[in-house]
Amino acid sequence: MTVLPDIQLVLRPNVIEMRLGSPDPALLPVGDIARAAELALCRDGPQALAYGAEQGPRRLLEPLAAWLAQREGRAIAPAELLITGGVSQGLDLLCTLLTRPGDAILVQSPVYHLALRIFADHGLELVPVASEDGGLCVDGLAASLETLARAGRTSQFLYLVPTFCNPTGISLTDERRAAVVRLAEAHGLTILEDDVYRELWYDAPPPAPLQDLAAAGTVIRLGSFSKILAPGLRLGWLTAATGMVARCVNSGLLDSGGGLNHFTAHVAAAYLDLGLLDGHIERLRAAYRQRRDALLDGLARFMPADCRWIASGGGFFVWVQLPEGCDSGALLPIAEQAGVSFVPGARFCTGGGGERYLRLAFSLLPEAELAEGARRLGAVVDRKILGND
Amino acid sequence: MTVLPDIQLVLRPNVIEMRLGSPDPALLPVGDIARAAELALCRDGPQALAYGAEQGPRRLLEPLAAWLAQREGRAIAPAELLITGGVSQGLDLLCTLLTRPGDAILVQSPVYHLALRIFADHGLELVPVASEDGGLCVDGLAASLETLARAGRTSQFLYLVPTFCNPTGISLTDERRAAVVRLAEAHGLTILEDDVYRELWYDAPPPAPLQDLAAAGTVIRLGSFSKILAPGLRLGWLTAATGMVARCVNSGLLDSGGGLNHFTAHVAAAYLDLGLLDGHIERLRAAYRQRRDALLDGLARFMPADCRWIASGGGFFVWVQLPEGCDSGALLPIAEQAGVSFVPGARFCTGGGGERYLRLAFSLLPEAELAEGARRLGAVVDRKILGND
Repeated sequence: MTVLPDIQLVLRPNVIEMRLGSPDPALLPVGDIARAAELALCRDGPQALAYGAEQGPRRLLEPLAAWLAQREGRAIAPAELLITGGVSQGLDLLCTLLTRPGDAILVQSPVYHLALRIFADHGLELVPVASEDGGLCVDGLAASLETLARAGRTSQFLYLVPTFCNPTGISLTDERRAAVVRLAEAHGLTILEDDVYRELWYDAPPPAPLQDLAAAGTVIRLGSFSKILAPGLRLGWLTAATGMVARCVNSGLLDSGGGLNHFTAHVAAAYLDLGLLDGHIERLRAAYRQRRDALLDGLARFMPADCRWIASGGGFFVWVQLPEGCDSGALLPIAEQAGVSFVPGARFCTGGGGERYLRLAFSLLPEAELAEGARRLGAVVDRKILGND
Repeated sequence: MTVLPDIQLVLRPNVIEMRLGSPDPALLPVGDIARAAELALCRDGPQALAYGAEQGPRRLLEPLAAWLAQREGRAIAPAELLITGGVSQGLDLLCTLLTRPGDAILVQSPVYHLALRIFADHGLELVPVASEDGGLCVDGLAASLETLARAGRTSQFLYLVPTFCNPTGISLTDERRAAVVRLAEAHGLTILEDDVYRELWYDAPPPAPLQDLAAAGTVIRLGSFSKILAPGLRLGWLTAATGMVARCVNSGLLDSGGGLNHFTAHVAAAYLDLGLLDGHIERLRAAYRQRRDALLDGLARFMPADCRWIASGGGFFVWVQLPEGCDSGALLPIAEQAGVSFVPGARFCTGGGGERYLRLAFSLLPEAELAEGARRLGAVVDRKILGND
């Protein structure tokens, strides 16, 4: 009989699992979340366990709006904020409300591969917009918009991760942010800004969100407690124009079930009210910075000279370009045999490409393992170049 | 500035809110859920807060399968069980995976009105199947299936609440259950059995689920912790053939976000493991039985002679038929003026009808208020008949 798993993360013995872009469970603040859960139930009692207000409970909306304003230096009205069940759930709801199967959407390529799976379940046609070292390619966006327009079609939205992108680690530059927003406004294009890595910067704060540069209504920005607190809470938020928030609030799903995750929203509210979040993010930054450095050091030491990568300034990932002729998909079983895993680049790319790339995650593993993982990966690529595999 | 609400329930002063079909927050086991949350975090630590296994955590799947088997006298393999974020979320996911906009689905009429809103968000065409005193009308189902077939169409599924139906309180008889299942099997029709009131019976246990009578794969049954534990946990389950469970597990939403509500699933698991659920359900039954009796007594005392209702054997609702010529939608503002509310019957009916009916909920209010609510309603209907309104 199969033993059912409890968590999503499955680690194989003897494999350094750099494929897994998950927060390290050892970094989850279990004791403080227990305190927050106790406080939430103690101060609000049944209120924390009843059907929640559709937009999310006032208990969380108010301190979250204040926290976002303090962190990001821009006031957010509570009416522009919706509590979600995490980014995945938020994307799923937006697809239900904004799209119909067969609709075209523009997606950054490469971009978070599992968002693409959610879009596919909604029957959407994915139109790629190429990214390069500076992030989403503005000319590529203009060209994709023009192609659609010539076919008499429009895109329901553009999905991208402009800040510490999964999988590339790259942030869109200020100039490109402005250009992307201008193009979107000119074309009436809605932008879904997946912004889950914003707080996890290791060298310098990232550029302002696209949302801050755009007219109200252009950008829907998705945030999450998954990376900065705990993914098992299934809790996030989105900021958007009040009309879009109202559209979500008035959906059948929220009318029927109430707010998307009422009890865990109360737990997160208590965690915020206890003043624990900023210090925790500081600790996460310190831990993940060390891990990023360990991986970058390992890559510098062990990867063959004709491999390339960009030092990620935040997030969970490093995106490695292999030497010409190297296919990361073909390399994966060999690497796993040698005790190291990654995600092949093609998984993140819509409409082909990405074969020369692979994604390494440094969020889950301690420094020594990351260094050893880089060593094993370097050896595998070396052997491949020498034609011994 | 508007004050944001914390919970969905909004009670107006001086109105006896019999429109609200919500569990009474005063009956939520706050202290025991706090114990369960503490135990969940104490015994599993980060495991309870990481990305959860897509199907739901083993921690909950195993005791829930055992609990269902013990309560319902039928073994359920864990592979036939999926943890959901409540029935609303489960319905939403099934619509995404099983339907496309424009598809026809069969819906019991009258039936839970907010499920209809979820279906509408997915662009589905609702084809009503009439219900009567014994529950869903079998001839009506046959006729609807035939109408669709003649138009060269099929229905993606039939949605119904066969046990202590919302809004009617009626349970489908054993004979009709067998007939509905036979018809569905003959037509290859999938049944979505919304079974959230099963445990809340006040006189005698309800008939076996449709799922128990059907070949594997015919019925997807949705259960929930909302009515028997706490709606704010946003937690439920579905039982289905292993292939259907696998289809949900392999969806983009679950691949991306992990199990649907991992932390609250751990809390519910701890609550089950502490052996608290059966006793709590016993207490709920006793409380809701008294409320049901108080409402039925009040209706018998105060409603005009030409009103009709069926004594509900379980669930949260009584469905009242008004005298001929009385329209419950027109009556509502008058009733609210007189300090009592209800939901007009037409809201639950697809394709028209229901104007002579109204739904009263007895779950939320104490006995004295229910009796007074019946008195106020009776007086309003009386005045209406006499033509004084």
